[in-house]
Amino acid sequence: MANRLTLVLGGAASGKSAFAEALVLQSGTARIYIATAQALDDEMRAKIAAHRNQRGDNWQTVEAPLDAGPALSRVMPEQAVLFDCATMWLNNHLLAEHDIPAEVEGLIAALTECPGDVTVVSNEVGQGIVPDNALARYFRDAQGQLNQALAAAAQRVYFVTAGLPQLLKGEQR
Amino acid sequence: MANRLTLVLGGAASGKSAFAEALVLQSGTARIYIATAQALDDEMRAKIAAHRNQRGDNWQTVEAPLDAGPALSRVMPEQAVLFDCATMWLNNHLLAEHDIPAEVEGLIAALTECPGDVTVVSNEVGQGIVPDNALARYFRDAQGQLNQALAAAAQRVYFVTAGLPQLLKGEQR
Amino acid sequence: MANRLTLVLGGAASGKSAFAEALVLQSGTARIYIATAQALDDEMRAKIAAHRNQRGDNWQTVEAPLDAGPALSRVMPEQAVLFDCATMWLNNHLLAEHDIPAEVEGLIAALTECPGDVTVVSNEVGQGIVPDNALARYFRDAQGQLNQALAAAAQRVYFVTAGLPQLLKGEQR
Repeated sequence: MANRLTLVLGGAASGKSAFAEALVLQSGTARIYIATAQALDDEMRAKIAAHRNQRGDNWQTVEAPLDAGPALSRVMPEQAVLFDCATMWLNNHLLAEHDIPAEVEGLIAALTECPGDVTVVSNEVGQGIVPDNALARYFRDAQGQLNQALAAAAQRVYFVTAGLPQLLKGEQR
Repeated sequence: MANRLTLVLGGAASGKSAFAEALVLQSGTARIYIATAQALDDEMRAKIAAHRNQRGDNWQTVEAPLDAGPALSRVMPEQAVLFDCATMWLNNHLLAEHDIPAEVEGLIAALTECPGDVTVVSNEVGQGIVPDNALARYFRDAQGQLNQALAAAAQRVYFVTAGLPQLLKGEQR
Repeated sequence: MANRLTLVLGGAASGKSAFAEALVLQSGTARIYIATAQALDDEMRAKIAAHRNQRGDNWQTVEAPLDAGPALSRVMPEQAVLFDCATMWLNNHLLAEHDIPAEVEGLIAALTECPGDVTVVSNEVGQGIVPDNALARYFRDAQGQLNQALAAAAQRVYFVTAGLPQLLKGEQR
């Protein structure tokens, strides 16, 4: 049986990570957290610590700000993975000036070929006013394309608003 | 029987206030409007006047930009309250440099202990691009946390888009 | 029998245009594309070309950045129209300093009186943080009002997130 890919979308501070963690706790016995955030300043350090506290101890953490492929390929079928989050991953690749469509293709392949179930967290960033600067518009479009690709590859897609999930694709387990 | 708390979420100009008013008109006989907006400039004055026109006359208005506790505790069981809106309330407390988590806790307690049904309007602000400035990011996260707390405390949560409500939690009356 | 008006809402890069095109392909035999975008700079030229490629050849394109009335009135009952998009149309009228409520009223009349089925694409722009500048706030409110008017006039409303449609009003065909 193939693994299962779940996408959890939501806005900032929508409770999407907590919901995704609860999904992962339901599936698999060993839990792997693939962390994309880099603690480059105090604001990020505080966010990372808050998320770690929320998750609790029973997670094996793998830091993979750019390439999650090796970590995903080593997962066991009975393990469950949380990839948090695709927005930070995209941001890291944009800062590194990588070829975004190629990176997206590689990420989707690694996620779908992972032997265990994977839950991916990603941000909705396209429902505000058009940003003034071209880089923000580029990011917004790239994030939208990435979310479309993740949603197309996923068996299940949730959108979380104020902590409340809506199922946009697939079936509840 | 306990009162009922309803949360109406939506973006700017989504029709959330009009929908919330219609909900309140269905419940209770006497209607109380708890106004959080302060008419500090012409743009706000125009918005307040437009909302008052939309509501019509049959409302008792209580101005409570910061502390709605006293007004909520005086409500009668057969009265219905519209609290519009939690975003302006949050903004007022941020400008006053209050302790936001403590204020949120106090608001949730006052809303759940109010003897009559309460409908709270709040904005979704976290689905656009990450704001440039730290204060806007702080506000966005605080609003997300507040919306999660309100949604957890509410028996019913609606999300309004282009005037159309989606029920995210609870049951239609 | 009256024509049918469908509104397809969504954020930036949400897949709303591709979904709307697929809807139009299902209905009608001849397809008319009412284009609102003006190729004023390279970024817009690239976007227009990408959308044209996505649509493919079997469309008759009518350029109508401001007044779609004449084009809509000439549609035959068996033809199907894609109006893409209401956000660009609003932007064009704002830049031309037209009377927005009057223009919205005219557009709604032309859409509802069109002899063929019409699908309108529009952006959700009100779910991010409050913009700093007054013009962006004005645009955001005007877009929200326009979306409410379109949703009220439409028989069917979809909201597209990451390529996945949710039906907010009406019935699937």
